Amino acid sequence: MVALTIKQNWNTIAKEFEAVVGKNGVIRKREELLVYECDGLTSYRERPELVVLPRTTEEVAALVKICDRYQVPFIARGSGTGLSGGALPIKNCVLIVTALMKRIISIDLENQRVVVQPGVINNWVTQAVSGAGFYYAPDPSSQIICSIGGNVAENSGGVHCLKYGVTTNHVLGLKLVLPDGSIADVGGEIPEMPGYDLTGVFVGSEGTLGIATEITLKILKTPESIRVLLADFTSIEAAGATVSDIISSGIIPGGMEMMDNFSINAVEDVVCTECYPRDAEAILLIEVDGLEIEAETNSQRIAAICSQNGARNVTIATDPDERLKLWKGRKAAFAAMGKISPDYYVQDGVIPRTKLEYVLHEIALLGEKFGYHVANVFHAGDGNLHPLILYDNAVPGALEKVEELGGAILKLCVKVGGSISGEHGIGADKRCYMPEMFSPADLETMQFVRQAFNPKGIANPTKIFPAPRTCGEAAKAGVIKEFAGVELF
Amino acid sequence: MVALTIKQNWNTIAKEFEAVVGKNGVIRKREELLVYECDGLTSYRERPELVVLPRTTEEVAALVKICDRYQVPFIARGSGTGLSGGALPIKNCVLIVTALMKRIISIDLENQRVVVQPGVINNWVTQAVSGAGFYYAPDPSSQIICSIGGNVAENSGGVHCLKYGVTTNHVLGLKLVLPDGSIADVGGEIPEMPGYDLTGVFVGSEGTLGIATEITLKILKTPESIRVLLADFTSIEAAGATVSDIISSGIIPGGMEMMDNFSINAVEDVVCTECYPRDAEAILLIEVDGLEIEAETNSQRIAAICSQNGARNVTIATDPDERLKLWKGRKAAFAAMGKISPDYYVQDGVIPRTKLEYVLHEIALLGEKFGYHVANVFHAGDGNLHPLILYDNAVPGALEKVEELGGAILKLCVKVGGSISGEHGIGADKRCYMPEMFSPADLETMQFVRQAFNPKGIANPTKIFPAPRTCGEAAKAGVIKEFAGVELF
Repeated sequence: MVALTIKQNWNTIAKEFEAVVGKNGVIRKREELLVYECDGLTSYRERPELVVLPRTTEEVAALVKICDRYQVPFIARGSGTGLSGGALPIKNCVLIVTALMKRIISIDLENQRVVVQPGVINNWVTQAVSGAGFYYAPDPSSQIICSIGGNVAENSGGVHCLKYGVTTNHVLGLKLVLPDGSIADVGGEIPEMPGYDLTGVFVGSEGTLGIATEITLKILKTPESIRVLLADFTSIEAAGATVSDIISSGIIPGGMEMMDNFSINAVEDVVCTECYPRDAEAILLIEVDGLEIEAETNSQRIAAICSQNGARNVTIATDPDERLKLWKGRKAAFAAMGKISPDYYVQDGVIPRTKLEYVLHEIALLGEKFGYHVANVFHAGDGNLHPLILYDNAVPGALEKVEELGGAILKLCVKVGGSISGEHGIGADKRCYMPEMFSPADLETMQFVRQAFNPKGIANPTKIFPAPRTCGEAAKAGVIKEFAGVELF
Repeated sequence: MVALTIKQNWNTIAKEFEAVVGKNGVIRKREELLVYECDGLTSYRERPELVVLPRTTEEVAALVKICDRYQVPFIARGSGTGLSGGALPIKNCVLIVTALMKRIISIDLENQRVVVQPGVINNWVTQAVSGAGFYYAPDPSSQIICSIGGNVAENSGGVHCLKYGVTTNHVLGLKLVLPDGSIADVGGEIPEMPGYDLTGVFVGSEGTLGIATEITLKILKTPESIRVLLADFTSIEAAGATVSDIISSGIIPGGMEMMDNFSINAVEDVVCTECYPRDAEAILLIEVDGLEIEAETNSQRIAAICSQNGARNVTIATDPDERLKLWKGRKAAFAAMGKISPDYYVQDGVIPRTKLEYVLHEIALLGEKFGYHVANVFHAGDGNLHPLILYDNAVPGALEKVEELGGAILKLCVKVGGSISGEHGIGADKRCYMPEMFSPADLETMQFVRQAFNPKGIANPTKIFPAPRTCGEAAKAGVIKEFAGVELF
């Protein structure tokens, strides 16, 4: 390659991009780049050099080929709602934004599948098929804004993933643009294709193996009947034991959420649902679905288990409006925290259900030790905790302390046999904790795969895997700078 | 390496193996090697040079390191019941047999998981936990003899995988010996671990990425109640429409099997169940499980759907003995074919449920064209066909013709949007059909992964991926000889 200055090179690249997607498809102005400096993990920021907005698989392939030729790193971004910094830019990178790839390509009700472009919003899938009696199961809290491409990258979960599984259980096949710009199909239109399950590898790979440009999703029949139960308890222990007893009884609810006293009051203060008893130490929100008779029988069984464990009251809602009312507070819980505290930091860890009581107690102790209140609103059924650490970012050093507390909580999750991420991914935020869960040999095995797909390291470098620098150092620097894999110009 | 004759080298390797597993753990005598010449795909045979029987992960690792050092290919084998030749030896190979790795390492009922060595027989897992009210869901026909290691390698299915999914849905984590002899853990004790889903890649990789030496399985609660329905139809069309209607109604039965008139009569001739009406064109066997009320309601609904589609009779069995009686003929169907025909060739393909009627008709036409009868006994609910081609191997050229017919059936499956394997794997038998399903780019993407794990190509070479030679040539040669990846001594 002819030696050019960095600026000249970026000018050339921008022109080549424009030849693919048109002038309007390339963003280079500083002020317009501002919104792309971070995703949902707002504590890290970095400006991309270029943002580019393709519309088709072929355009994505052409853009990636240009990146490959110039050896510039590219990072895919959907709606930018991810909470682990998976779409966080690095210095001198191209951000390939899928916001214009919003087409639902095909709907096949008979075979219960839908093919979408990655920019399609999660909720649109259900909207497109609900009239015919179907829905798309994974439902992240951000479902009215997050994209299916982002869900695939982060293997997103949601309230209803207890019974139906997270995103990877709902993706049948993918059309991919690999990091060298070639196009490949993995999986297909039916489950369990022969050969290696590359669909499974790709889902949750956070953009490090390429970009999914067409996604074949499974859709499910809308259940005949739904019940929502609200049970209130005078102790966390009793609520935790109830969760274990329900699962042990063989019933798998559609969702089973827990909120602690602090969260209940935050929600009542802000959303005023008047649904949740302010003096309860914990409430459980449990949804059961299925045939009418099944939902009815299971809700009665669950109510009995709640009572046996000392629930003071159990409310069962059948009517859609009543059900919505019970869910309202839970759905507004994060927003409520944002109103009662200047800032909050949401952590995402998984523990075995049987350790619920112990871990919540330890989290409270850790909170005391660090001097922060930790609220708990989470997917109790699958042990997926979301501790919310309340703090004030204006206090110097607060973020670092909060991150340290968040890290201590993750280490606690690993210690009891759990995981450092349930549904938000590793991204930039948690890569330093990967060695807590995986041995060097295990991480190396993953790196084999990364290198197989992404030998030049230009697809979302620095994400998922622990960087050469220690985590504390990266946090202090405030941005993720390492991109060891490629020499820039 | 000092240049030695092939024989001297094998003597050296055998001695090194003996140092790891003892004299009794290494088999070299010609007559003792005989049983290892093929697996369940008996039409191909090749003698391994050495068979070795390790007992622990460390022993497997030590053996694989020796193979790596001498660059000799190794092939893992469980019980040898696989039907696609996944454990078929190649010339100058080592067969690592897991038959002595039969330990159930731990049972954790609270968290519903069991850790086993790969030689543990499928059925033992359920036996070990059934007293406590649990079971292991995947149930291949060979479940009383096939090993969990083999199930993992081939991603095995079974009658009850319609509702609960095939093996990959029930494996939480794996301890692996990689092809260089290093040990790595993938997955873990909880579902949805962060990082790449290497557990998913490994399950179904047919020994080409290494050997699983410890397997963490999910176990499920035994359902409260089970019903088995037998419905008989005067046309295949009506039975096929019933299958589609049941699934469309939102009910997912535990299993839904179809048998055609020929199979019904074969079973009645041999097993004499007196359960199946000899004049039915097709029967459906449908199992529903769940809560008592759920099983009862669903069985009544299904019975109504059968009647609406013209079923002459619908029998519902609740009592365990009655249920067993209804299943007996289905379970004995393959054996029955073996009694009424000198030989049979079982094919394994998948089609979209909606194409059932068309495909069965086309299969009958293909059978007529080739001059063979094709019986159909299969997992109708998930569109997983098992056409049984009846023939006489003593007739010169018959096997080749039957294989050609089998191939034509697979191509038909692919043409209607299905797959060349539902649950038996690709192995040696079907690799030539991989290009029917996957483009060169798609296959290359899989090869990236294979090379990442297995750069020297010594782990089960020549399996899954199309060989350089055409399929017809390989079939004519009668054995699989290619091992292009490694030069032997």
